[in-house]
Amino acid sequence: MSKKSPKNTSKSSKTRVESKNAVEEAAPKKRAAAAKSPVAHIKDENIEAQAKSMASNQREISVSEFFAKNRHLLGFDNPSKALLTAVKEAVDNSLDACEEAHILPELEVGVKQTGESRYVIWVQDNGPGIVKDQIPNIFGRLLYGSKFHTLRMARGQQGIGISAAGMYGLLTTGKNIKISSKTGPQSQAHYYELRIDTKKNRPDIIENNTIEWDVRSGTRVEIELEARYQQGRQSVDEYLRQTAITNPHTRIRYIMPDGQECIYERSVNQVVEIPKAIKPHPYGVELGVLMKMAKDTSCVTMTSFLTNEFSRVSSRISGQILEKAGISSRTRPSRLSHQQAEKLYQVINETKIMAPSTNCIVPIGESGLLKGLEQVVEAGFYTVCTRPPAVYRGNPFQIEVALAYGNENDNANGSKDEEDNNNGEKELMRVLRFANRVPLLYQQSACCIYKSIMQTNWRLYGLSQSKGALPSGAVTVIVHIASVWVPFTSESKEAVAHYPEIIKEIKLGLADCGRQLGRHLRGVKRQHEEAKKQSYIKKYLPAIGEALQDILALKDQQVRNALDNLAYMLEHSRKNKPEQ
Amino acid sequence: MSKKSPKNTSKSSKTRVESKNAVEEAAPKKRAAAAKSPVAHIKDENIEAQAKSMASNQREISVSEFFAKNRHLLGFDNPSKALLTAVKEAVDNSLDACEEAHILPELEVGVKQTGESRYVIWVQDNGPGIVKDQIPNIFGRLLYGSKFHTLRMARGQQGIGISAAGMYGLLTTGKNIKISSKTGPQSQAHYYELRIDTKKNRPDIIENNTIEWDVRSGTRVEIELEARYQQGRQSVDEYLRQTAITNPHTRIRYIMPDGQECIYERSVNQVVEIPKAIKPHPYGVELGVLMKMAKDTSCVTMTSFLTNEFSRVSSRISGQILEKAGISSRTRPSRLSHQQAEKLYQVINETKIMAPSTNCIVPIGESGLLKGLEQVVEAGFYTVCTRPPAVYRGNPFQIEVALAYGNENDNANGSKDEEDNNNGEKELMRVLRFANRVPLLYQQSACCIYKSIMQTNWRLYGLSQSKGALPSGAVTVIVHIASVWVPFTSESKEAVAHYPEIIKEIKLGLADCGRQLGRHLRGVKRQHEEAKKQSYIKKYLPAIGEALQDILALKDQQVRNALDNLAYMLEHSRKNKPEQ
Repeated sequence: MSKKSPKNTSKSSKTRVESKNAVEEAAPKKRAAAAKSPVAHIKDENIEAQAKSMASNQREISVSEFFAKNRHLLGFDNPSKALLTAVKEAVDNSLDACEEAHILPELEVGVKQTGESRYVIWVQDNGPGIVKDQIPNIFGRLLYGSKFHTLRMARGQQGIGISAAGMYGLLTTGKNIKISSKTGPQSQAHYYELRIDTKKNRPDIIENNTIEWDVRSGTRVEIELEARYQQGRQSVDEYLRQTAITNPHTRIRYIMPDGQECIYERSVNQVVEIPKAIKPHPYGVELGVLMKMAKDTSCVTMTSFLTNEFSRVSSRISGQILEKAGISSRTRPSRLSHQQAEKLYQVINETKIMAPSTNCIVPIGESGLLKGLEQVVEAGFYTVCTRPPAVYRGNPFQIEVALAYGNENDNANGSKDEEDNNNGEKELMRVLRFANRVPLLYQQSACCIYKSIMQTNWRLYGLSQSKGALPSGAVTVIVHIASVWVPFTSESKEAVAHYPEIIKEIKLGLADCGRQLGRHLRGVKRQHEEAKKQSYIKKYLPAIGEALQDILALKDQQVRNALDNLAYMLEHSRKNKPEQ
Repeated sequence: MSKKSPKNTSKSSKTRVESKNAVEEAAPKKRAAAAKSPVAHIKDENIEAQAKSMASNQREISVSEFFAKNRHLLGFDNPSKALLTAVKEAVDNSLDACEEAHILPELEVGVKQTGESRYVIWVQDNGPGIVKDQIPNIFGRLLYGSKFHTLRMARGQQGIGISAAGMYGLLTTGKNIKISSKTGPQSQAHYYELRIDTKKNRPDIIENNTIEWDVRSGTRVEIELEARYQQGRQSVDEYLRQTAITNPHTRIRYIMPDGQECIYERSVNQVVEIPKAIKPHPYGVELGVLMKMAKDTSCVTMTSFLTNEFSRVSSRISGQILEKAGISSRTRPSRLSHQQAEKLYQVINETKIMAPSTNCIVPIGESGLLKGLEQVVEAGFYTVCTRPPAVYRGNPFQIEVALAYGNENDNANGSKDEEDNNNGEKELMRVLRFANRVPLLYQQSACCIYKSIMQTNWRLYGLSQSKGALPSGAVTVIVHIASVWVPFTSESKEAVAHYPEIIKEIKLGLADCGRQLGRHLRGVKRQHEEAKKQSYIKKYLPAIGEALQDILALKDQQVRNALDNLAYMLEHSRKNKPEQ
């Protein structure tokens, strides 16, 4: 009924606007009246009109419009989170760029207040810079980038982050995103001011100059946005602190809103090994994807298709697969029938194929992770576990878990007498989550890491745990997932989706650390008990000695020998006692 | 270094492919070697090369490619969730279409197994059908629809859902999505088979026929997909059951995989009142958005701009705002300077403007919600609260909460002696979440409804609650959020984002129900105590009577009178006793 045309003509008289408005106001009343009739059966001719009226409103939604309206999907739900997200996106990009160019990253991160609820943030790196023509696209357009189409471990993967931060800045303050970039000592530095055109998802270039910039190479991005600065567990400060933990090859100079500087020095002077980009592994490729790949490939035979477009398919394996599927090795992939593709898919999943190469993933490593954990928490007990790489949907990933147990003397085994119900003063397990070396500070409970921890029975390992809650005690757990494609639950990359393969691996890592913890706690408990028993023995042995002397009329030396033997036997029996 | 051109030429010889491959394999080795040098300083000329090489990989990512790779964002992380999501998207669309056309919805939902891990699902409605030309766009293209650009309460809002379900079907089974549609008794029915072209985000039409279809009007969609059918709390069965609760005007015939039929009869014979579409409320419009609206408007004066493009801005209010902001009412909105816009924004937020009209939201209502809750759970105590509408980011929303307490005789006040730590046998609060009448079955812990419940101190209301866990006891809570734009945490629409305004409203609703519960539980406790006291009085009164008779030598009648008085006085004092 409301026949508003999908496209607003950009110029029109005031009268027209008002009449349009009047129509809109009137229409719902008519509807409401219709709704009040008891059964509200609609007339035949009205059905047709309905379908047509609804069709006239159908139209395309631009990606930027979509994300501008849904900006919480990108991590901009509230001002303090927005500040963190903007810094994070810029830092992630800088670290990726430096690493890809074999440069030891050196970052300057700044946050400065410019109004009651306004801040400007900037991030400057010593990376390779960005080619002039690409600057507007990278910073002024969503879904544009180089990492999406490559299977290689990287912080960024979607081509959304930094443009989204710029878009949020524009939406909330009306200010442009400012970029300086220099691609080498002999190159001219370029300065851009951009704003995203949300209706078209294209950059509007507001300013574009060459500038003098006294650096060898690098990129600097500056965004003014509505924000709130806070400290604590979900702050920029914490994000940078945790980033330093998992990126010891990086130097970060952080200029805080109060003007103070905080410097995280580099502790490793070696660039990170660049993970190798890989082809998809056949196990993770779905039937529809397989069909699409066969149609799109430039390979002219099935053999070359299978060996070139997938990882871990040798000509031997390819031969095996094709024979079993009854497909000639010289078949053109583009001519594969639906039935042949189904058969091929089935055979691939029945054939034993080597797990994907793991050099597309660079884990932090057990020693690195342990060092990181030791920086975060001082504890009496540490354990760490790097799982072997695994695969979900054809994407290799690897889980690392580290655990610290706070205080040796804390209620060693189960705190069943501890009261849960009262004031909730009890300390719960602290969880630090990382994905491809990036700390995840938000949406803990939406994350499969959290779910895996909750589904682990920590009572088995000597911790107490209420139903539906994290285990309690002075325990800190780090979980790191490294993958060529981390499946985040939203574009803001705050939590990892619940893929069964990933949950399984995390649980195995947790169980491994848990068993170490359990052994430790039982050891602590046993030591306590032994100490107690020993004190009993020490206490009663002299009395036994006196009694023996009285009964058997022994000499002092004989008594001493008898007691020594007795003590030895008691110790001995105690040590052989099986663990409970 | 890997200078793969962004566009793959579709035809090329085998040799070329292999050489390309060889380059790719070789490059990483060179990189790895560079990485092993101690400081790995990169030469000047290499920096330039890096920036160029990185630029050559930059390219656009199509929305469909993005979501195909990120399909967990759309609710397709695993086979059982995929089944639910596909059914849900189709049912949501059908209900929206019927309601918009004032038709009492009559749905057929079917799930049938076609292979070991394959199902076909279909949903057929008696809605107004879809105009022929729009069918391919609606089912074969992401981000296309009518609801995104309208501020009105609806189940669908993004233009993604059903096309995404079709895309998932295609990816996992290679099968097309099948659509039949008829827009009225005199119209020809159309049958389509489509598949989405993910690289372009456009539909490929595989089949397109007119067919005979013996219905008045309606749409039927059929998707074959990789899936797993299960029962339980996150199943299609449960989704339909809960849908029936919040949509009593709908009749659903559900054909289950085992061939059995389950029918949810209509219990209300009246179409739902159609919520009115509204304009944005000035309070929720950000500076950047305001500037963009002023630039894009077809209004030629500031007065007409403010009164026409926003809700609740009368000419009086508009005059007030413009005067305070020092802007002439005849200024062309498109010529507003940045400074003027900032001032306008500031003044708008200082001016008292009526809350947005609430007829854009149709809550379920207290009686409806209560009826729903009674269907789900048999309990001794029910309470319900519909909050007044509120606004987040200019979007009106309304919260409804209902609560049922299971068993009157259950540990009435606090169960502090209950043991938490042991076997976790304790029952936790059950939470049913709804958004615009749609049940939300996944990602409970990511939802702001869950967070609001967790942040409420249920001990105040007589329930026990461990730290970091839901309260325990036989309690069921329904929370419904109705809004013109529900801010979901992901495109799969499973959890509501953590907007502070929404959390505040939910908490107020919960507190209201909590207070009722607390009063009830205290009442139950008092009754227990009174009963106990009464039994004491009854027990000792005769003895007192005998004693009095002995001491004062009273007659039987006198004793009876005295005891009656005494009983009355004791009762009286007890009833006046203040509540604790």
